[in-house]
Amino acid sequence: MSFINDNFMLQTETARKLYHEHAAKMPIIDYHCHLVPQQIAENIQFRDITQLWLVDGHYGDHYKWRAMRANGVSEDYLTGGKHTAWETFEKWAETVPYTMRNPLYHWTHLELSRVFGIDKLLCPATAREIFEECNAKLATPEFRGQALIRKFGVEVVCTTDDPADDLRWHKMIAENPFGTKVIPAWRPDKAMAIENPEAYKAYLLQLGMAARMEIKSYRDLCEALQKRHDFFASMGCKLSDHGLENFYAADYKDVEIELIFQKVLMGIAPNGRELEKFRSAFLHDQAVMDAEAGWAQQFHIGAIRNNNTKMFNEVGPDTGYDAIHDPEIAAAGHRFFDRLTLEGKLAKTILYCLNPKDNAVMMTMAYTFNDGTFPGKMQFGSGWWFLDQEVGMRRQLDSLSALGLPEPFRGHAHGQPQLHQLPAPRVLPPHPLRRPGQGCRAGQASGLRA
Amino acid sequence: MSFINDNFMLQTETARKLYHEHAAKMPIIDYHCHLVPQQIAENIQFRDITQLWLVDGHYGDHYKWRAMRANGVSEDYLTGGKHTAWETFEKWAETVPYTMRNPLYHWTHLELSRVFGIDKLLCPATAREIFEECNAKLATPEFRGQALIRKFGVEVVCTTDDPADDLRWHKMIAENPFGTKVIPAWRPDKAMAIENPEAYKAYLLQLGMAARMEIKSYRDLCEALQKRHDFFASMGCKLSDHGLENFYAADYKDVEIELIFQKVLMGIAPNGRELEKFRSAFLHDQAVMDAEAGWAQQFHIGAIRNNNTKMFNEVGPDTGYDAIHDPEIAAAGHRFFDRLTLEGKLAKTILYCLNPKDNAVMMTMAYTFNDGTFPGKMQFGSGWWFLDQEVGMRRQLDSLSALGLPEPFRGHAHGQPQLHQLPAPRVLPPHPLRRPGQGCRAGQASGLRA
Amino acid sequence: MSFINDNFMLQTETARKLYHEHAAKMPIIDYHCHLVPQQIAENIQFRDITQLWLVDGHYGDHYKWRAMRANGVSEDYLTGGKHTAWETFEKWAETVPYTMRNPLYHWTHLELSRVFGIDKLLCPATAREIFEECNAKLATPEFRGQALIRKFGVEVVCTTDDPADDLRWHKMIAENPFGTKVIPAWRPDKAMAIENPEAYKAYLLQLGMAARMEIKSYRDLCEALQKRHDFFASMGCKLSDHGLENFYAADYKDVEIELIFQKVLMGIAPNGRELEKFRSAFLHDQAVMDAEAGWAQQFHIGAIRNNNTKMFNEVGPDTGYDAIHDPEIAAAGHRFFDRLTLEGKLAKTILYCLNPKDNAVMMTMAYTFNDGTFPGKMQFGSGWWFLDQEVGMRRQLDSLSALGLPEPFRGHAHGQPQLHQLPAPRVLPPHPLRRPGQGCRAGQASGLRA
Repeated sequence: MSFINDNFMLQTETARKLYHEHAAKMPIIDYHCHLVPQQIAENIQFRDITQLWLVDGHYGDHYKWRAMRANGVSEDYLTGGKHTAWETFEKWAETVPYTMRNPLYHWTHLELSRVFGIDKLLCPATAREIFEECNAKLATPEFRGQALIRKFGVEVVCTTDDPADDLRWHKMIAENPFGTKVIPAWRPDKAMAIENPEAYKAYLLQLGMAARMEIKSYRDLCEALQKRHDFFASMGCKLSDHGLENFYAADYKDVEIELIFQKVLMGIAPNGRELEKFRSAFLHDQAVMDAEAGWAQQFHIGAIRNNNTKMFNEVGPDTGYDAIHDPEIAAAGHRFFDRLTLEGKLAKTILYCLNPKDNAVMMTMAYTFNDGTFPGKMQFGSGWWFLDQEVGMRRQLDSLSALGLPEPFRGHAHGQPQLHQLPAPRVLPPHPLRRPGQGCRAGQASGLRA
Repeated sequence: MSFINDNFMLQTETARKLYHEHAAKMPIIDYHCHLVPQQIAENIQFRDITQLWLVDGHYGDHYKWRAMRANGVSEDYLTGGKHTAWETFEKWAETVPYTMRNPLYHWTHLELSRVFGIDKLLCPATAREIFEECNAKLATPEFRGQALIRKFGVEVVCTTDDPADDLRWHKMIAENPFGTKVIPAWRPDKAMAIENPEAYKAYLLQLGMAARMEIKSYRDLCEALQKRHDFFASMGCKLSDHGLENFYAADYKDVEIELIFQKVLMGIAPNGRELEKFRSAFLHDQAVMDAEAGWAQQFHIGAIRNNNTKMFNEVGPDTGYDAIHDPEIAAAGHRFFDRLTLEGKLAKTILYCLNPKDNAVMMTMAYTFNDGTFPGKMQFGSGWWFLDQEVGMRRQLDSLSALGLPEPFRGHAHGQPQLHQLPAPRVLPPHPLRRPGQGCRAGQASGLRA
Repeated sequence: MSFINDNFMLQTETARKLYHEHAAKMPIIDYHCHLVPQQIAENIQFRDITQLWLVDGHYGDHYKWRAMRANGVSEDYLTGGKHTAWETFEKWAETVPYTMRNPLYHWTHLELSRVFGIDKLLCPATAREIFEECNAKLATPEFRGQALIRKFGVEVVCTTDDPADDLRWHKMIAENPFGTKVIPAWRPDKAMAIENPEAYKAYLLQLGMAARMEIKSYRDLCEALQKRHDFFASMGCKLSDHGLENFYAADYKDVEIELIFQKVLMGIAPNGRELEKFRSAFLHDQAVMDAEAGWAQQFHIGAIRNNNTKMFNEVGPDTGYDAIHDPEIAAAGHRFFDRLTLEGKLAKTILYCLNPKDNAVMMTMAYTFNDGTFPGKMQFGSGWWFLDQEVGMRRQLDSLSALGLPEPFRGHAHGQPQLHQLPAPRVLPPHPLRRPGQGCRAGQASGLRA
């Protein structure tokens, strides 16, 4: 029997029944991913499996890169661009056998099996054959971007977009429908990033252009963001997302925030206390904006990023040098949502944590602000990034069910960052108590159907 | 076979043997619970299952309330008092199927089965029938408060009482024995709560009346508490309990504590540093009092409380708006017990944590102060509150046995807060290595038999 | 069937095959332990099982002591030296049945079975018989120190040595080879311990004598350490080790470090900020030294030590009064390795944590600095000390495989501190995905074969 087969990971009769009779039939509503809108709009045809899986210009799969570096593969093969597609793929094939028990092993073989119909295990001996078979298939229309998305019954995709983005690719997709709805999601991380004044001022110029106004104050910033928020809403956007080290909920006065903003405009980097106040104000005002628009908001908490300065200088962000952070989150998190609750401005909310130690805190925090207006109004999201693997998912489900209700949870699992990392069906580990509707195939953002 | 049956959760032959031949026969000695002495003394007859399970004047089951709010049930049905007993019960019945895998699902059906002899699963279709059958039974003498306690072989109950309490209900119970010994336990949380000077001053008046003295200094406070401590001891009390965010063990001088106390008497709220010093002094002095009286002391560490200010203003404390906190606990905890050890004033101690990340720290901390004078003198308590469920109990047992001795541990599980939440037999998950005497049926506070 | 048998802990066919056909045959290369070089050099003959297991002059097994104290055994039997070998052993025999599920239960019976050929379970009824049989065997040549090491196929042992040590016993062993290579490992904890100026100055005298120079400045300290580092290298040393509460990576200037050092020489204890700066400088300079020598470095992070001052005053350090600490480690840890990476001075590195909450952080931190030059250049070490038991090892393997590659990991488990705690084969729990080469029998320090 093949490693990947119809009952892969389905170890009990109940699991098989629940998966095949219920979960498998459900559409994917992917309310958070990092697919590249341009690649969808242009219906990308991949040059080869190396572009799809490993290196795509300045994009790449940092999950695989981390594994390869740990296995002694030189950077030349990854970000270096000094090797052919085959040479890079061969290095990946050498690494795959050592990823056993890591989700990369499962993802690799699920994708080979379910996308390419290849049943072999990838290793140096099979690498050339697999490379060529994949490449041949990738040259056909059935393997272009849109076809791959349709193949898995994806009903909706929400991409991750900057407020300054003109959403031209979303417009093009909407004008040329291919069966999957692709809508933007609001990710204003750059609009909060005052820690680097020069980069921030450059960003404000972009944002100002998009909002057709000059941004000379924090108040202007909020106005510009509100305009873009409205525009995103007009393009179908229904949810926001924030990638944060922690929650921020310091006390502040409006005038303090304006002063901090002016300092940054003058090119002066804020100190730690100023940074915390600014982030507290910014996130609060964003949350109010979401509540007023009737959107859902997402908080991805707990990454410590760009830790390897040498490599950051050489290859930039999001290249595999981020890690799991460990600050205290309970006090600031509760204060943040408490304020919004007092003001009657709490949007539907999904909380994700990157540190498994935070599961129990996140789960009880979320339930402390459920107000009975909507089932699952505030919920603990599924295992994310480093936690998007069997142990991580089991722990998330344990916290979810031991401390709350499995049911209003809208499952979601995103393990890989781009279109060329297919939204393959992420099969949750079978569990006797798992019921249809919880898995990622059934992911439905609280706000999406509204 | 029924969901609840004689071998519920007993999945192996060993588990069944250990439970039925040993654990099941043992009495319950419940050394920590929140039963209401008045309800025991008056041998309460419950109006209906809604009063017993869901809403009882200003009491209620915040576990169920959280689940119902997360399921979209409006506050009107819970604390609102705007609906009939049936309407509130019906909302609970709608929520129960979604609690699958949450301990509420198990508790609900264990109580229906073992108390009411009802074998059906609660859901909207069965709700009316179950409601009526329960209510009919609750009207009979076999379902009054004292009979319910006797039904489960409870030998001793220790309630949770404020030092200012006159213990009149305990006296009444003692004068009218019903087969279960009901004794008070000392919980002086209010005597430490200087963060709100007005409420604190009002409390000092009460405490002073109980101790028949005026409290004008920290020294007076200690004297008044000592008088009440002696009185509690005379009423059979043998253990104390503290509900804390963290341990406190700052350095302080007596004169500093007096100054902080005087500030509070003048209505000035203490700052963070003063709060920490005061708590450090107060807890230390309490621990000495317990050691000198030969009591056991309990520390429940790690809740962050009253996080939803809107609801706190509307419905008050202990209504389901508390959560799991995540501060560092090791440094202060060790300092606290180190001082007591140096002074030869370490009482028998049980430590509980609310954040599962603290299990290993709590366990190794407890064992660092065992001194060979008494088996299990200092021990790590069982899964508490949010952790009083299968995953939580397994982790507690794992920490207990991997880092220490399962044996001197005196198991205890309290999942529900009032008499109308019956002290139903909390069946620990069967474990091949679990031995008789560890479960909650066999809970024996270290000091109770002395 | 005996409790300890050929398939002890090997519950599946795959486990048995992997263990017997692969793991069991591999030699032990023990790159971190606390065996006493003198006892190896002198080929110690143990007086009795009490010396071997429980009390050996000022040495002793603090694992067993903690368990005995928790079981109510008086200190007189342990560090007190007030009882005969038999009396102390009898107290241990009384405690053993209560350690069920603790690794002490497994270690005790593994050692009885595999070293002494005794198949009985230790308890009061069997104690005398076992005591006498062990003692009789310990009097024979087959039970001397070197024979015990050889018995388990130990190819290499790295001891743990202070820079001031003259390594005379290592020299003696090298001149009288017995089949196992015994080499020193560099543990400079005392050279960083400025928090106690008097003890530190006394240590500097020792270190200066060993380096044949006077140490009057931080610069001198570095020079003296470099000399000793070179000497250790000449004696075969290939790796260092640090036992730390946390990582330290504060900003500092060289002149600040010199000033702090001069203060300490004047007998003035450094404040918290100075301590952190000094540790940051010291650890950084040590790491550079290791990188330049081509050594591997180890960091054991997260113990809080000497928490029981009363017992520290009476019986000193390492006597069972240490515990698991819980500070945040991610920020300082990343900064520490980031600096070394920027300078091109990152040695091969193994990270160990004592708090299981840190597993995920440690694992992702380690992989953030893998640079593709060497498979497993930076890796997360195995379960250590309190985590060296089944639950701890499973969690470590889960983190290892879910967040990284199981393969370049060089397993290692050390549970017991001295020669008289034999390096018995620590059988890892069988796991279907465990592959030969990961277990502790196959431990190979990254640098040892180079």
